Amino acid sequence: MEPISLYILGCGSAKPTLRHLPSAQLLELRGKSYMIDCGEGVQTTMQRAGLAMLKVGHIFISHNHGDHVFGLPGLISTMALLGRTSQLHIHGPEELSAFLETVQKIYCEAMEYEVIFHPIRTREHYLIYEDRSAEVWSIPLRHRIPCCGFLFREKQSLPHIRREMIDAFGIPVSQINNIKAGASWTTADGTVIPHERLTIPAIPAKSYAYCSDTRFTPGLAKIIQGVNLLYHEATFANEHLTQAERTMHSTAREAAMTAKAANAGKLVIGHYSARIKDEHALLNEAKDVFANTILAREGLRIDIL
Amino acid sequence: MEPISLYILGCGSAKPTLRHLPSAQLLELRGKSYMIDCGEGVQTTMQRAGLAMLKVGHIFISHNHGDHVFGLPGLISTMALLGRTSQLHIHGPEELSAFLETVQKIYCEAMEYEVIFHPIRTREHYLIYEDRSAEVWSIPLRHRIPCCGFLFREKQSLPHIRREMIDAFGIPVSQINNIKAGASWTTADGTVIPHERLTIPAIPAKSYAYCSDTRFTPGLAKIIQGVNLLYHEATFANEHLTQAERTMHSTAREAAMTAKAANAGKLVIGHYSARIKDEHALLNEAKDVFANTILAREGLRIDIL
Repeated sequence: MEPISLYILGCGSAKPTLRHLPSAQLLELRGKSYMIDCGEGVQTTMQRAGLAMLKVGHIFISHNHGDHVFGLPGLISTMALLGRTSQLHIHGPEELSAFLETVQKIYCEAMEYEVIFHPIRTREHYLIYEDRSAEVWSIPLRHRIPCCGFLFREKQSLPHIRREMIDAFGIPVSQINNIKAGASWTTADGTVIPHERLTIPAIPAKSYAYCSDTRFTPGLAKIIQGVNLLYHEATFANEHLTQAERTMHSTAREAAMTAKAANAGKLVIGHYSARIKDEHALLNEAKDVFANTILAREGLRIDIL
Repeated sequence: MEPISLYILGCGSAKPTLRHLPSAQLLELRGKSYMIDCGEGVQTTMQRAGLAMLKVGHIFISHNHGDHVFGLPGLISTMALLGRTSQLHIHGPEELSAFLETVQKIYCEAMEYEVIFHPIRTREHYLIYEDRSAEVWSIPLRHRIPCCGFLFREKQSLPHIRREMIDAFGIPVSQINNIKAGASWTTADGTVIPHERLTIPAIPAKSYAYCSDTRFTPGLAKIIQGVNLLYHEATFANEHLTQAERTMHSTAREAAMTAKAANAGKLVIGHYSARIKDEHALLNEAKDVFANTILAREGLRIDIL
């Protein structure tokens, strides 16, 4: 099975620096591209990473702050220029709809594709979207305005058929889908060959959680329990805890506490405050709590294997 | 007198490339910063060029296409984050106001400064703004939607006083402003010392014209006659003249024809189509008509001496 690949397209916070761009990510999963947040400059980072804009079918917006949405007008317009005809779905808090409507009304009149907005109830943890490859669940977050994260759960693939067993027992092709789906096989003499002997289990399905922006929330760990990769904002270091509390952000230490409590496979931290000059201090602070932590940076690709 | 400095912050057209950003410029004139168009990504280029966002007092928008305005939401928000309290004036076609209103209503509620919109009558050539240092005139352009360029005219400085003449004739300090303003001096014995002997003329005032986006317009040359520096769009090469006509843009040759007819001091071309892989073809085409032509590129600073 192909890995799920996460591309960091922007991992700064609202005040711009030359080190980072505002929040944006792209998740590639079984050939599909899901965008998460859409800060200004996202098109440039996508082009640099060789990512195709037209492949993005769904965009998930965590909350309606400028540093998470100001890349949308340009991206929507560019998709039209590139000749898009298929629908683009944007999921986000209700507050986002007015901006999208204005942008479309003014700048996208002659556009040949449709933008469909799906409001999210940010206070609830529920399945907001699914397709053949993945489920996307909302993760209620605590920020200054309605905000939620996203939990991507790859759907479990069916097991692989063991060709040599099929041949040995003379199982007809018509039965293969049943066996993949879990059936056993009964031979002519009544012997039952259990499903497990006929198949090799597929690689377990992977998951990815995006949690930004949020004040530290102990309850979060339960929702994302066992997630393979967690992106958690770490706007501040622990020495600026008061400011984190006031602005409803998290410290690196808190991000790591959530990763630890959730038994996450790996933690990537980002959404760095402009005042952070050396992110390695954040990294060390997080690693003290959760060793498998890395720093986000623009252009970074993380494979969930 | 300090030079007028023009900074190219973006000189691509709507379809993004990794070579260029969408249209944006900054003009520095006697310590003031005027922005012209405001494409996405402008904050990054400004930071890279060491330009202060808070110094921008007036923004002039040529027309309401996304590649000329999608940097505004981010810039307006960032100015608030940086603690701006002084008014920001945005001049542009009436069509821009709805976008600005939506952005402010949704994203700038708690902002401590005011954005004031000044609609421009794009079909007229008139003085749209002046301060102690400069006049800004609209230049009617021909594009698919209402669009105008901008002619910046530095105000003429007063002549410099020749200190040694003031001393030689014992002219009192109280008269110096009158002499700067053009007066002569009459000595006690009735001899008239002409103004010209008492002063050194100031360096002639400079001018800059921004013409983008526009179909080639022969009448333009009259309005910008004698301009020191002309930025003129050259979206296409002459071989794509049909496309230039259809999309209401100009070719490099046409930009140069306008520069020549206007007796411009220098021409800088930009707003390159994404299909232009080598801009030197455009440069050569323009130089065949108007030798003193240069190519715009992001970060380029051009001093008008």
